[in-house]
Amino acid sequence: MNSWIPISPDSHFTIHNLPFGIFSAGRKKTRLGIAIGDQILDLAAVAELGFFDDLAAPRKVFDNDFLNDFIALGKPVTNAVRLRVQNLLSDENSPLKNHPEVFEKQSEAVMHLPVRVGDYTDFYSSIEHATNVGKMFRDPANALLPNWRHLPVGYHGRASSIVVSGTDIRRPSGQVLPTRPTAGREGADVPVFQKSARLDFELEMAFVIGKESPLGQPISTAEAEDHIFGMVIFNDWSARDIQQWEYVPLGPFLGKNFGSSVSPWVVTMEALEPFRVAGPEQQPAVLPYLSFSGNKNYDIALKVSITPPQNDSETVVSRSNFKFMYWNMCQQLAHHTVNGCNMRVGDLLASGTISGPTEDSFGSMLEISWMGTKPVTLADGTTRTFILDNDTVTMQAVAEKDGVRVGFGEVLGKILS
Amino acid sequence: MNSWIPISPDSHFTIHNLPFGIFSAGRKKTRLGIAIGDQILDLAAVAELGFFDDLAAPRKVFDNDFLNDFIALGKPVTNAVRLRVQNLLSDENSPLKNHPEVFEKQSEAVMHLPVRVGDYTDFYSSIEHATNVGKMFRDPANALLPNWRHLPVGYHGRASSIVVSGTDIRRPSGQVLPTRPTAGREGADVPVFQKSARLDFELEMAFVIGKESPLGQPISTAEAEDHIFGMVIFNDWSARDIQQWEYVPLGPFLGKNFGSSVSPWVVTMEALEPFRVAGPEQQPAVLPYLSFSGNKNYDIALKVSITPPQNDSETVVSRSNFKFMYWNMCQQLAHHTVNGCNMRVGDLLASGTISGPTEDSFGSMLEISWMGTKPVTLADGTTRTFILDNDTVTMQAVAEKDGVRVGFGEVLGKILS
Repeated sequence: MNSWIPISPDSHFTIHNLPFGIFSAGRKKTRLGIAIGDQILDLAAVAELGFFDDLAAPRKVFDNDFLNDFIALGKPVTNAVRLRVQNLLSDENSPLKNHPEVFEKQSEAVMHLPVRVGDYTDFYSSIEHATNVGKMFRDPANALLPNWRHLPVGYHGRASSIVVSGTDIRRPSGQVLPTRPTAGREGADVPVFQKSARLDFELEMAFVIGKESPLGQPISTAEAEDHIFGMVIFNDWSARDIQQWEYVPLGPFLGKNFGSSVSPWVVTMEALEPFRVAGPEQQPAVLPYLSFSGNKNYDIALKVSITPPQNDSETVVSRSNFKFMYWNMCQQLAHHTVNGCNMRVGDLLASGTISGPTEDSFGSMLEISWMGTKPVTLADGTTRTFILDNDTVTMQAVAEKDGVRVGFGEVLGKILS
Repeated sequence: MNSWIPISPDSHFTIHNLPFGIFSAGRKKTRLGIAIGDQILDLAAVAELGFFDDLAAPRKVFDNDFLNDFIALGKPVTNAVRLRVQNLLSDENSPLKNHPEVFEKQSEAVMHLPVRVGDYTDFYSSIEHATNVGKMFRDPANALLPNWRHLPVGYHGRASSIVVSGTDIRRPSGQVLPTRPTAGREGADVPVFQKSARLDFELEMAFVIGKESPLGQPISTAEAEDHIFGMVIFNDWSARDIQQWEYVPLGPFLGKNFGSSVSPWVVTMEALEPFRVAGPEQQPAVLPYLSFSGNKNYDIALKVSITPPQNDSETVVSRSNFKFMYWNMCQQLAHHTVNGCNMRVGDLLASGTISGPTEDSFGSMLEISWMGTKPVTLADGTTRTFILDNDTVTMQAVAEKDGVRVGFGEVLGKILS
């Protein structure tokens, strides 16, 4: 299938992808769009032309600040809209050829947070990441905690501070333990207040809940896919020094909630269908409510780069893959709801840091620099153990197979002092 | 000051209180109300009569599913509305005497969740509770963790499963470690899937954010009160067995997010003003960003009772007080935002379990029954270590001083199997 829109061979936004996002441009206020090549198809404008009127998708749903109302229409409707757009963009006789006003250049549009996030949950589902952290902070010979292989460990994050790619992030201040005892406050167990000196990224993917589930009603692994609308790239910014002092016994808090960045385009699970692969074998066998059948992992190549200030030379510091996840999304959702916890459309469930088996595939500076002991040299000759002020961190994700390419674009964020 | 509305001497809803809530009654759909005696003043109806037109409070803000839009008007407006109502209800020549249609009996109204909660945070700010838990699960001689006296430990909870008083809660199922090794799955470190056998309440209070703060901008302890609209009683239902297995290292998750219950009436900080008291001395001295001046604790008597199924005999199992809190609300809010975390109107920040110094003031069954080792005998002769199916747990909160009485009503919830 090809589009009559010119699409560069390296574009993430092919006719096979068609992700949904929220944009504004010129005098057009925020509304729904679909990315195609370097263009955005203005769905509010297409709806006004009547192209979705037969699909049970009210026109006003496309003229909106968030995707939530559209997603809540349900997969039969949202898939029908996506397929209609695929037809309109691939048909050589497409009526849209007479409507240049329904396209905007991505370079001239502003992207906004795609979903209004009710609740955001972060998992810890990469066995390589959990093992690395366990080796560094606990027992190298016994890196995984006893519960890790029995359930997808997760915790609640802060929804208010989730921002769209391109939003600057301020380096947080907070309580940290001094590396050397401070004058007047002796001992290494007395905290000081300072700017975080160990600011880090976490390479993650997150999925968007597409279907509500009521309180008290679990979602099984078999039902889970029906509740997942699509995915984004997720950078779970972390202040390691703040986190380390605060997190016992109730988990991460201020070390995480100063900001998380998401990519603006939500790639649908339908677009990701060709990239299903088997996940790692799970040993010991999981409890019945976590068992599943079929391929539930996805082969999505991930890349993280750092761009120093006043410099265009970005350096790739990690190449990982979403297929490495030990716990898959269906298991995460089944676990999250097995106690009756309810889900709302737009809730975000993130994977946790996605590290691969090799050092060049680790998904955080904590692991890449091994707690700061192995500095990374960037293309401009400077070194990094953690992220410095005015550094920009960029994450990309793209799936490719048999000539079909489906990408997420990127999520980037610059750290301000 | 007295009201011309007859108010029973034991009512929580005196002319000094005037808490805000969301109710529906008969053909009146959800709207804002104020509790007075055993009545509700219908604020949407009062607004329609024009009584708030001079107060910069648009009529439509009172005809709403949640308090958020009203609260977002800011304290100058919300206080003015409350004082206007106080005048209207105390003035013997009140024009409302000619408008019986603006009153509804509480017994004939349905109360709804008062605020749309964006994010919910739970603290752990009672030193007695943290000490009890530390004694039970860690080292009795060293019960408090090193960070506890330096910062108000907190974590993010689930907003979607916060429900209003009266909502039944289903006993959650989940992974727990067996007390005895299970056939075929030997060893105490292999979990089983079952209904929670250690379902508990947590006696808490929560405050409602009244003023937004942007990402990157901390709120100081001095500014904090300006950001706090009011308070509710909060029952943070907990499944101890699920929690114990899952919570390392990222904190509570499924052991908590199956439901939290709030009282329907939000008592304003202005109504609580007479009940300010000094908090416990904090040793060691806190870091400057957590220091404060003035009385920041509140003397609010708290009570928890259990009512067994098919039985009217409720038994009080705890009498505690909000004044025991080691960390006050201003410190909690300053800490939460010191890293730049943003706050939105309607966010809920809960205290953590409020235990007092004596055994009869412990705020959870975990502590009251000391991990199940000391059963409590109820009025009907049955015993409890944790909460059984069809038990109803009721929490009440009331402040009283110099003849002025300000109460929260109650939060109750029944456990279904």
